[in-house]
Amino acid sequence: MYFASDNSGPALPQVMQALNDANRGYAMGYGADQLMADVRTQICDIFEAPDAAVYLVATGTAANALALATLAQPWQTIFCAPVAHIHEDECNAPEFYTGGTKLTLVGETDKISVEALRAAIEAEETRGVHGPQRGPVSLTQVTERGTVYTLGEIKALSSLAANYNLPVHMDGARFANALEALECTPAEMTWKAGVDVVSFGATKNGCLGVEAVIFFDDKHTWEFELRRKRGAHLFSKHRYLSAQMQAYLLGDLWRKTARKANQKAARLTTGLKEIPHVSFAHPPQANMVFATMPRAMHKNLLDAGVVYNIWSGNLDGSDPNEPLTARFVCDWSLSDANIDRFLEIVRNS
Amino acid sequence: MYFASDNSGPALPQVMQALNDANRGYAMGYGADQLMADVRTQICDIFEAPDAAVYLVATGTAANALALATLAQPWQTIFCAPVAHIHEDECNAPEFYTGGTKLTLVGETDKISVEALRAAIEAEETRGVHGPQRGPVSLTQVTERGTVYTLGEIKALSSLAANYNLPVHMDGARFANALEALECTPAEMTWKAGVDVVSFGATKNGCLGVEAVIFFDDKHTWEFELRRKRGAHLFSKHRYLSAQMQAYLLGDLWRKTARKANQKAARLTTGLKEIPHVSFAHPPQANMVFATMPRAMHKNLLDAGVVYNIWSGNLDGSDPNEPLTARFVCDWSLSDANIDRFLEIVRNS
Amino acid sequence: MYFASDNSGPALPQVMQALNDANRGYAMGYGADQLMADVRTQICDIFEAPDAAVYLVATGTAANALALATLAQPWQTIFCAPVAHIHEDECNAPEFYTGGTKLTLVGETDKISVEALRAAIEAEETRGVHGPQRGPVSLTQVTERGTVYTLGEIKALSSLAANYNLPVHMDGARFANALEALECTPAEMTWKAGVDVVSFGATKNGCLGVEAVIFFDDKHTWEFELRRKRGAHLFSKHRYLSAQMQAYLLGDLWRKTARKANQKAARLTTGLKEIPHVSFAHPPQANMVFATMPRAMHKNLLDAGVVYNIWSGNLDGSDPNEPLTARFVCDWSLSDANIDRFLEIVRNS
Amino acid sequence: MYFASDNSGPALPQVMQALNDANRGYAMGYGADQLMADVRTQICDIFEAPDAAVYLVATGTAANALALATLAQPWQTIFCAPVAHIHEDECNAPEFYTGGTKLTLVGETDKISVEALRAAIEAEETRGVHGPQRGPVSLTQVTERGTVYTLGEIKALSSLAANYNLPVHMDGARFANALEALECTPAEMTWKAGVDVVSFGATKNGCLGVEAVIFFDDKHTWEFELRRKRGAHLFSKHRYLSAQMQAYLLGDLWRKTARKANQKAARLTTGLKEIPHVSFAHPPQANMVFATMPRAMHKNLLDAGVVYNIWSGNLDGSDPNEPLTARFVCDWSLSDANIDRFLEIVRNS
Repeated sequence: MYFASDNSGPALPQVMQALNDANRGYAMGYGADQLMADVRTQICDIFEAPDAAVYLVATGTAANALALATLAQPWQTIFCAPVAHIHEDECNAPEFYTGGTKLTLVGETDKISVEALRAAIEAEETRGVHGPQRGPVSLTQVTERGTVYTLGEIKALSSLAANYNLPVHMDGARFANALEALECTPAEMTWKAGVDVVSFGATKNGCLGVEAVIFFDDKHTWEFELRRKRGAHLFSKHRYLSAQMQAYLLGDLWRKTARKANQKAARLTTGLKEIPHVSFAHPPQANMVFATMPRAMHKNLLDAGVVYNIWSGNLDGSDPNEPLTARFVCDWSLSDANIDRFLEIVRNS
Repeated sequence: MYFASDNSGPALPQVMQALNDANRGYAMGYGADQLMADVRTQICDIFEAPDAAVYLVATGTAANALALATLAQPWQTIFCAPVAHIHEDECNAPEFYTGGTKLTLVGETDKISVEALRAAIEAEETRGVHGPQRGPVSLTQVTERGTVYTLGEIKALSSLAANYNLPVHMDGARFANALEALECTPAEMTWKAGVDVVSFGATKNGCLGVEAVIFFDDKHTWEFELRRKRGAHLFSKHRYLSAQMQAYLLGDLWRKTARKANQKAARLTTGLKEIPHVSFAHPPQANMVFATMPRAMHKNLLDAGVVYNIWSGNLDGSDPNEPLTARFVCDWSLSDANIDRFLEIVRNS
Repeated sequence: MYFASDNSGPALPQVMQALNDANRGYAMGYGADQLMADVRTQICDIFEAPDAAVYLVATGTAANALALATLAQPWQTIFCAPVAHIHEDECNAPEFYTGGTKLTLVGETDKISVEALRAAIEAEETRGVHGPQRGPVSLTQVTERGTVYTLGEIKALSSLAANYNLPVHMDGARFANALEALECTPAEMTWKAGVDVVSFGATKNGCLGVEAVIFFDDKHTWEFELRRKRGAHLFSKHRYLSAQMQAYLLGDLWRKTARKANQKAARLTTGLKEIPHVSFAHPPQANMVFATMPRAMHKNLLDAGVVYNIWSGNLDGSDPNEPLTARFVCDWSLSDANIDRFLEIVRNS
Repeated sequence: MYFASDNSGPALPQVMQALNDANRGYAMGYGADQLMADVRTQICDIFEAPDAAVYLVATGTAANALALATLAQPWQTIFCAPVAHIHEDECNAPEFYTGGTKLTLVGETDKISVEALRAAIEAEETRGVHGPQRGPVSLTQVTERGTVYTLGEIKALSSLAANYNLPVHMDGARFANALEALECTPAEMTWKAGVDVVSFGATKNGCLGVEAVIFFDDKHTWEFELRRKRGAHLFSKHRYLSAQMQAYLLGDLWRKTARKANQKAARLTTGLKEIPHVSFAHPPQANMVFATMPRAMHKNLLDAGVVYNIWSGNLDGSDPNEPLTARFVCDWSLSDANIDRFLEIVRNS
């Protein structure tokens, strides 16, 4: 039973099939393949954005770092949550790709509030040439704590950013899970809400390794292509990226898959809610559950071979009642039976 | 008929099968998968280098840029051929990853000679702190003109580099093709000949997108891992890189595939040699043929739908006899029938 | 009456005289001048550190950024106070010079505490290759709020850093002012307390523009020289840097000058303490006074032509009693008469 | 007798006097001083460019690297002569400041020809996103071999660059010497000839350490200010840069000083021409003389305490007649008597 991450399960059979199908004959390299043309059309349609510029890369960090480098100048600062992936989990990739842009941590945890963002923006650029200059705002949707910005929240933050002429980036590593949680359209969650660029994740939601960077205007297209190549993220045999994305988007597969993952998390949440001594560190709104449980429960789960990460607190320790928080990530491939078995173990702890 | 590049043909069926096989159940991410452990063992065995450090990335440019960044300091210069991929075809990726290391172009064309390298090394660092400092030597094997360094040549260049304490990098995007041309062992072509780090290409020789970086000592391992992550080249679902490489190396598949590609090029070369007005800009020694032919022959080939690139001279022009040089790259999937048809067209031009 | 900064007053007459004296005949460039040899000896003597490596640059930001770039790797994070000059006032110079190292802000204000530093260090590097790695600790002495770390505090912080093998940098833009406040030796405040590298400021304390970077071991000397040159901070007519520093250090001029500045600040502080409605945002311990006074007092001061910066709060506003904090910096050239006139205005407000 | 460089002699007395004069009372820092306003007016007047943006830094490398970083993108290449200071003598500072822009070496030696530049430009950007993109053209005036581009040559090169929309940078470390050699106006040698940005040197021609960067349009002003600060090249006590430049420009001092230096070089050249076995490696056109003389002559000069650098060939060696080339740089402070004594030694060798 794996709850460690949504990158440890298998890829979707349809995606794998598409890879097999793509592996025939010759195809132009470096994004000039026919499948990429299809992907571009699919994404423009799905996002109701006929002029969107669409690029594929293979990792989420590449999508984020390249998108931010295109938006930010090296003397600026990027506003993000303190637990943002770009801050905590990318080994300074944004700093590397931007050439030294700073990250300003806004607020205390997973979500940025309008008040905290305004205060952070106001605090910068009060020192003229001496201080870092204001740069892009980056929102993580789903957040790193499993919560989801509402459309109203995104709009309010984007609108504030727009007042200062700051572009808005969305780290959508779990874009589909957020969309399913909000039951809205991709356009509503992005450009209609003021988002300028999206890292549109597909890897965590059933692909092998592919992410799209989507710009809703075409100001930066050639620059982005050069940055992608210079970053060594342009694939020669590009069709194998295109094929994954094409199958992922086809027939709403991506949304169905995310729905499935979210439903697994909901089943887990519902089950945990009924168990005494279990609480939630953050309200589970997509496919990640941050649950706080006594050490004894964790011991039993881990003894039973359940794989996941303790997020706060230390497993070593003698008090069986001490509460420890763990992250449980649900991917599409998780079975209801496994969830029920998990709940059984917790219940019996 | 595609002769444009060895990145336009399909991947090997065995590699594709391995991907399908790998797509089962859960696997640890980020290189902690079991298949990666296998790959490490395979490469250490194949290279007779039990302590080699082995890392996978998805593009050749990533392999080169990360390897060079690990070897070079930003105030140094890298010695390479003027037609090296790292200089001409990576959009300044080495400069980006190193933080501004310079490239010193040695000699006139595909191969670096000992004399030219000595002169270039001697010319640097005559200015103390003012000039760029001497850095790594990078050799491309197969060269970008389809020629192959002999073992003696590699040894002589490495030995010269060693005299100045300069490390040697081999850009082995077509490593297997060179090995087949030389009929030697991987160890002989690398560490036994003084090479410190290899970009071990697999993409061009039948994989979808995977390259190994191999260090023959373990000085730089942790640094390389950090550089790879920071460069956004660490795959979360790493097993899909491992699976390709594992299958590629299994049962000498990689060498057999390269042998096939080289044989195709030999068949093409043999055929062309017999045709009047056709000559070779560089001796074809692996899987690339740089042939010079009258414009009229090119017109006929292109009219027949053959895909390849004119390398020097301009197709537009009226003189049917003017010689133009083109690059013809042969990959494993090319059929003898297609080569013969190609020769037929040339012969009848 | 200028209290805006210690960079707005004139240079010391002895320093100016030394410049004039140095302007004779020929001298070797780039630090090979005789005066630089003298400076090296002076600093080694003053710091009781015969093996110290000493370099001159012209700005404090250059000293800090070059020193930190020599200590830190681009995938690390530098631990500093949130109000540190390197974070707030250098327009991302440290990020630029390091190639993208992050800054982790420790604690809430001017001083880093051992507890906060331990927590910050522990919070990093819990994510293996994914997160930023632990890097140098940077202490500002005098802090940006006019307070001074005690020797005990420096030792405790350095000792904690040493437990994690992290080097310690001291931003000593106001080194002399701190030394006078502590009445200790340079060695006691630096290497004897565990500091590895010092940005030894002279500009703010009476020079035209010169700072020393002092390494207490010689591990990094050649690297630093290359970084300085590459950063365009190596002066061709270096004697004009050397001459300033030589005169500055001669006969304890630097300490006497700082003592004078601190005494001015003490006179200002003593005067302000007796005035109702005036308080101190930070205990004034060197040559900077952060005083909080009603808006009406500020209005009167500014109307009288006193030059300084409001540090928190907004001068525009109608309530004459609202307290606003300002920074008053005292340099050596300030006259007692001016301080008394200043106090007179405040008293009469 | 110093002929080693124009950075080893003293600064002009007028410049030193200006420094002394500037050292009174308080002045705003960071370029907001009154003297800087004067300098801006002077330079706009002298260059007949009322809208020029003018910035001061302290080293020539800073002027070049910051100017080029403002003009070039990191995925581009800068076209320059193989002996350009930016290539040979700045320890990769341009690569550092640009974030990894490449330098393409045009031609064989000191001057770029139109034909060579066209060929070099045409050779780039034939590979789409893969290769480096075309970037600025950088001309060194006076060249590093003591020759001077004619106005016609500058115009022809700039006009070619303009055809490709490439900006033109002039490294004018010896700007005044070139101007005197050409007997033209600053405007004629720069914007009227198509130059976009000038590194306007003053250090080598009698200042202590100050250079202006002059942009002939105001597109890049704020960006340049941020780059200068981020590069740690913004002086807090800026008046000491302004004062130097102000005095340097006043009453044509700068042109008179350069005229003097050129006259010294002309005296040296005239004398050497009459001496058998002495020839010139490059036609001496400004204040640098590259003379080729038998080893025996060099031995005598060096024995007599003359200081200069052998530029090609090796002083060690037994053949007294073997010709070795040396660089002799003349600055304004050189006396005729010393030149004559020098010639005497050569003549008697």
